Amino acid sequence: MPMFTGVVPPVVTPLNEDFSVDYASFTRVLENLIGAGVHGLFVLGSTSEVIFHDAPTRKAITEHAIKIANGRVPVLVGVIDPTTDRVIDHSLTAKAAGADGVVVTAPFYTRTNQAETIDHFRYIKDAVDLPIIAYDIPVCVGLKLERKTTVTLAREGAIVGLKDSSGDDGNLRYVLADMAEDKQFFGMTGSEIVVDSVLAMGAHGVVPGLGNVDPHGYVKLWNLVQAGDLAAARAEQERLCKLFEIVWISTGRTSAGSAGVGAFKTAMRSLGIIATNTMARPQRALNDEETGKVDAILKSVGLLG
Amino acid sequence: MPMFTGVVPPVVTPLNEDFSVDYASFTRVLENLIGAGVHGLFVLGSTSEVIFHDAPTRKAITEHAIKIANGRVPVLVGVIDPTTDRVIDHSLTAKAAGADGVVVTAPFYTRTNQAETIDHFRYIKDAVDLPIIAYDIPVCVGLKLERKTTVTLAREGAIVGLKDSSGDDGNLRYVLADMAEDKQFFGMTGSEIVVDSVLAMGAHGVVPGLGNVDPHGYVKLWNLVQAGDLAAARAEQERLCKLFEIVWISTGRTSAGSAGVGAFKTAMRSLGIIATNTMARPQRALNDEETGKVDAILKSVGLLG
Amino acid sequence: MPMFTGVVPPVVTPLNEDFSVDYASFTRVLENLIGAGVHGLFVLGSTSEVIFHDAPTRKAITEHAIKIANGRVPVLVGVIDPTTDRVIDHSLTAKAAGADGVVVTAPFYTRTNQAETIDHFRYIKDAVDLPIIAYDIPVCVGLKLERKTTVTLAREGAIVGLKDSSGDDGNLRYVLADMAEDKQFFGMTGSEIVVDSVLAMGAHGVVPGLGNVDPHGYVKLWNLVQAGDLAAARAEQERLCKLFEIVWISTGRTSAGSAGVGAFKTAMRSLGIIATNTMARPQRALNDEETGKVDAILKSVGLLG
Amino acid sequence: MPMFTGVVPPVVTPLNEDFSVDYASFTRVLENLIGAGVHGLFVLGSTSEVIFHDAPTRKAITEHAIKIANGRVPVLVGVIDPTTDRVIDHSLTAKAAGADGVVVTAPFYTRTNQAETIDHFRYIKDAVDLPIIAYDIPVCVGLKLERKTTVTLAREGAIVGLKDSSGDDGNLRYVLADMAEDKQFFGMTGSEIVVDSVLAMGAHGVVPGLGNVDPHGYVKLWNLVQAGDLAAARAEQERLCKLFEIVWISTGRTSAGSAGVGAFKTAMRSLGIIATNTMARPQRALNDEETGKVDAILKSVGLLG
Repeated sequence: MPMFTGVVPPVVTPLNEDFSVDYASFTRVLENLIGAGVHGLFVLGSTSEVIFHDAPTRKAITEHAIKIANGRVPVLVGVIDPTTDRVIDHSLTAKAAGADGVVVTAPFYTRTNQAETIDHFRYIKDAVDLPIIAYDIPVCVGLKLERKTTVTLAREGAIVGLKDSSGDDGNLRYVLADMAEDKQFFGMTGSEIVVDSVLAMGAHGVVPGLGNVDPHGYVKLWNLVQAGDLAAARAEQERLCKLFEIVWISTGRTSAGSAGVGAFKTAMRSLGIIATNTMARPQRALNDEETGKVDAILKSVGLLG
Repeated sequence: MPMFTGVVPPVVTPLNEDFSVDYASFTRVLENLIGAGVHGLFVLGSTSEVIFHDAPTRKAITEHAIKIANGRVPVLVGVIDPTTDRVIDHSLTAKAAGADGVVVTAPFYTRTNQAETIDHFRYIKDAVDLPIIAYDIPVCVGLKLERKTTVTLAREGAIVGLKDSSGDDGNLRYVLADMAEDKQFFGMTGSEIVVDSVLAMGAHGVVPGLGNVDPHGYVKLWNLVQAGDLAAARAEQERLCKLFEIVWISTGRTSAGSAGVGAFKTAMRSLGIIATNTMARPQRALNDEETGKVDAILKSVGLLG
Repeated sequence: MPMFTGVVPPVVTPLNEDFSVDYASFTRVLENLIGAGVHGLFVLGSTSEVIFHDAPTRKAITEHAIKIANGRVPVLVGVIDPTTDRVIDHSLTAKAAGADGVVVTAPFYTRTNQAETIDHFRYIKDAVDLPIIAYDIPVCVGLKLERKTTVTLAREGAIVGLKDSSGDDGNLRYVLADMAEDKQFFGMTGSEIVVDSVLAMGAHGVVPGLGNVDPHGYVKLWNLVQAGDLAAARAEQERLCKLFEIVWISTGRTSAGSAGVGAFKTAMRSLGIIATNTMARPQRALNDEETGKVDAILKSVGLLG
Repeated sequence: MPMFTGVVPPVVTPLNEDFSVDYASFTRVLENLIGAGVHGLFVLGSTSEVIFHDAPTRKAITEHAIKIANGRVPVLVGVIDPTTDRVIDHSLTAKAAGADGVVVTAPFYTRTNQAETIDHFRYIKDAVDLPIIAYDIPVCVGLKLERKTTVTLAREGAIVGLKDSSGDDGNLRYVLADMAEDKQFFGMTGSEIVVDSVLAMGAHGVVPGLGNVDPHGYVKLWNLVQAGDLAAARAEQERLCKLFEIVWISTGRTSAGSAGVGAFKTAMRSLGIIATNTMARPQRALNDEETGKVDAILKSVGLLG
C-alpha cells in the first residue's frame, strides 16, 4: 500500500494583520480539514506561503499542525528552499517535530539540470530519515521533473511519491505506469479541476489548495471515485470547478500567486474559518470589491447562505 | 556622481572539499581583484553561489570581504532570497557588517507581478538604511524588471542603481535615458561579452563574473572606454570573449548555472588563485577533461604559460 | 447534437521517395481508418504535414480523400496557413471539393493578440459557407486560444467546435462548461494519451495522430467510454500509451515534429499500410535503427507478429 | 568585401483600404528611402507584412521594387513561408524578377531542430542560384539559429550573411568572430535601438523597420560610425530611440506585431509618404487617439512641424 493516499490539502497559513501567524485561525483551518475527513495534511506548501516564512516560524507552524492533528491524520511538511543544504536543515527540523514525510522541490534560483536535480534528492535522502515526496512545480522553480528523473529516484528509493503540480497529466500517467509494479509508490495531483480524471487514471491522491475552502467537496469526490461512481464524481468536480473560478477574480495578479491563495483566504474569511485575508508581503490581499465577487461565487455553489 | 561606477565583479566564493568556505583562498580572490584595480566588490551575487549559503555563512563572508577590502573599495552585498522579509533580514546583517549597499532581486518561487515587485523594493527601503541596487535577472527569478518598474523605483529613491543581467541592452538604454537627469542613478551590465557596447551607450559600470578570472582585462577595458579609445576597448573585449568560451565547455549543464561558475572556479584554480574548483551541492564541479579544455583557453588568451 | 463526434484521426499523408504524394498508399490509409470504424477524417492537419504542401497539392489531397470517403464518414479539412486571406483561399477550395468543415488555427509567424485572433475567425466565417472548427495548437502557432476567445467565437456562431491540442485539459473543461447549453457545440482533444479522461469530462471526440497506426484501438476506446465501461477504457488507453512511446525513439528531434509523425509513418510502413516513411523536406525520416525500436514496440502491444 | 552592407530597411508595404497594395504610395516609400541614401532595400520582410501576401502579390511587389530601384541600390527579397519547398518557389520567382538576394528564415509552424534547419538552407541553396541571407527571428518562428548552425552554413557557402533579429547581440558577436577570416560574410542587426553598438562591434549593416519613418537618421548614424565618430553616432541613435517609442503606443498589441508596423505606417501617413495606415487582416490599424500620440512623438524629434 502507498504510504499516503487520498485528499491531502496544502494547508493555508492564516496571518494576523501584522503578518504574524494567527494560530487561533490556523487551529480552525486544521480542525475544519480533519473534521471534513481529509486523509492527510500538507503544511508549508506553496499554498501555505511557505517561502515567506523563516526557519523559526516554519518550525512553529509544523509543531502546531502536528499537535492539532494529534495522530488523527499524517502530516507532511514542505521543506522548500532554493538549495540542498537549506532543504536538509528544514527537513531535520521537520523530523524532530514529528513530521510523517517531507515534500521537496527541485533547486531553484540557481539553474541546475536533471542530473544535478537527481543528486539533490539523493543528498537529502542520505541526510534525513523521513519519507521524501518529490514536488514537481515548474511554474515556481523553472525546471520540470522529467519522467526519467522521477522514476530513477523512485526506483532507488530516494522518493516515496510524487506531487505533480506541473499540469502535465500525460507525463504523470507514464510515471504511474513505470512504477506500477511498486505497490508503495504513489502519485498525487496538485490540480483542483481535473481531479476526477487524474484519479481515474490511477493517481493515489490529490493535494488541492481549494480544499481549504471546501474540504467536504474533495472528500466527497475522492469517495465517489473510490466507489466507482465516476458520473457522480464528475458532477462534484464540476461544482468545484465553479468554485475554483474565484482564483481569476483578481485579474491584475497571477492565479499561481496572490490571486489564487488570496482568493482562498478571502473565501475562508467569508466562511468564518479565518480572521483576515492578509497575505505575506509583498503580495496584496484581495480588496472589498473582489471579496464581493468571491462571496457571489461561494453563494452560487451553496457554501454561503 | 553615481554612488558606484566602474568594474565591480561578483566575487567567487571558494569552497573547501567539505563545502565550507575556504577563507584563505577567498582572501586571495579579493586581493587579486583589488590589486588589479577593480572599483568595487559585489559579494554574495549569483556567481558567489549566494543562494547556497545560510545566514551565518553569509554574515561571515560579508565580514571577511569588508575586513579584507578595508575601505580600499566599496563592498556591495547580495541579499538574495525569495521574499521581502527574508531579504530585509539579510540586509540588516549586511548593514551591521558595514556594507556600502545591498543588491536586491525581485521575489522568486512565489509568482508576483510588477506592482507587488515595486512594493517589495519599497518595503526593503523602508526597513534598511542602505543604498539599494536593483538586480534584474529573469533567468533566475522568472520575472523581468520592466522599464517602468525600475524607473518608478529610481525616481522615488527606493533604488540608487540597476544591475542588468537580463540581456536586454535596449531596455537598459531606455532606463538610462529616462534617468538621464538624475546624476546619481547608475546602470551596470552583468554581461561579460558586450561590455564595450553597453559602456559606450552610457552605462556606468560592469559586474562581470569572468572578472574573477581576468580582472586586469576588465579594468583595462573600462579604462580604454573612459579614455575614449573604443577601438582598443573593442579589441580587449574580443580577447575576453575568447576567454568567456570556457563557460560552454561543460555541455551537460547550463552556462547560467554550474557550467559557468564552475568554469570560473576551474580557471581560478589553474591560475593558482583558489585551491579547489568545488561547487556547492548539488552542482557538479568540472572534471579533469573539462579542466584540460579550460586550460587550453587560458593559454590561448595569454593567462596561462 | 454536435455536428461531429467520435474518433476523427488527422490523416497521415504518405509520400513517395521523390516527396510527391503516394496516392495508392493514401487510399490504403483512408480505407484502413474507415474500415476500423472511425467517425470522421481530418485531412491536412499537422500530422498530415499540411504545412509542407502547396495549394494544388492540398486540393488534390482533399479531393482524393473525399472521393475515397464517398460519404461514408465526414471529411474535415485543415486550412492551415499563417494569415486570414490565405486561410480563406484554402477554405474556398475545400468547400468546392465538398469538405464537411474546415479546421482553422490562430494566425502565425506574425504576432497577433486575442482580439485580432477573434477577428481572424470572423473574417473567415464571413467568407466561407462551411462549419469552422477552431484548432488550438500553441506549440505550432505561438498563441493559446484563451477560454474567453473560444467561447466568444462559439456563442456568436463563428465556430462550431474546438480541437484542443494545447494540453490544457482544465481549460477545455471550462470551455465545455461554458458551452453546455449549446447542444451543437463540440470539443475534441488532440491528445493520444489522456483520451479516456477527456472523454469522461464530456469532450465529444478525439483527433489522435496515433489513430493512423491503431485506429481499432481508438474506436474501441471510444465505444467503451460510450458504453460507460471506464475501467476497460482505461486499460485500452494504457495499451495505446505503450504504443505512443514510439514518438520518443528519435531523441534528436522534437516529438511535436518529425520524431512524432516520423514514428507514425515508420510504424505504418512496418504494418504494410504505406510504402515509405519519407517525410517532407527538411524533416528527416527515422533510420533503420530507429525502425527496429518502433517494430519492437509494435510487437509489444500486439500489432506486429 | 561583403556583398551587402549599410542601411537596408525592410520596406513597408502600403495598402489601400480594400487591402490591395497601394503602388503609388509604395513608389513614394521606395523613392523616400533611396533618396535618403540607403544602401539597399529589403522587400517582403516581416515589416513588409510579407506573410499576409500570396504568391502573385509577392511577385508584383518584388517586380515593382526592382523597377523603381532600377539598379540604384540592390534589392533583397524575403521568401518567407513555413517550409522548404514553398520557400524555394518564392525564391525562384524572386530570381526571375531580378532580385539580388533572398532572405530565408528557419521553417515554422512545424517543429524542426538545428540539423533539419541546416538541411532546409542547404536544399534552398541547391535549388536557387542567388545569394541567401539567413534571417534569425525566433519571436516569429519559434527557433533560434544557433551560432554553430549559422557558422556551419556560412563556412560551406550556403549563406552569405545573417540578419539577426533575435536580440542576442552577444551571439551575433561570436558569429562575426568565427567568420572573421571570411571577408565576404556579413552580419546585420534587425535592431532599431542598439545600432551604434552593434556596428561598433563589427556588424556590417542594419535592417531597421523604423528606417521607413526616418531613413535619413539611420543613414546619418551609419555614416557617423563609418567616420569613427561614435559619440555623434550615439546622439543620433538616442534621437532614433525616442522616435522608436511609437511602437509602444498601442498597448493592446505586441510591439513585434501590429503595434510596431502599425505605428510605422501611421507615422508615414502623417509624414505624407503613404495614403493610409491600413494593416493586412486581421491586424488592426492604429486609431485616431493613437495617431495623435504618434504625431506628438514625430514632433518631439523634429520630423513633423
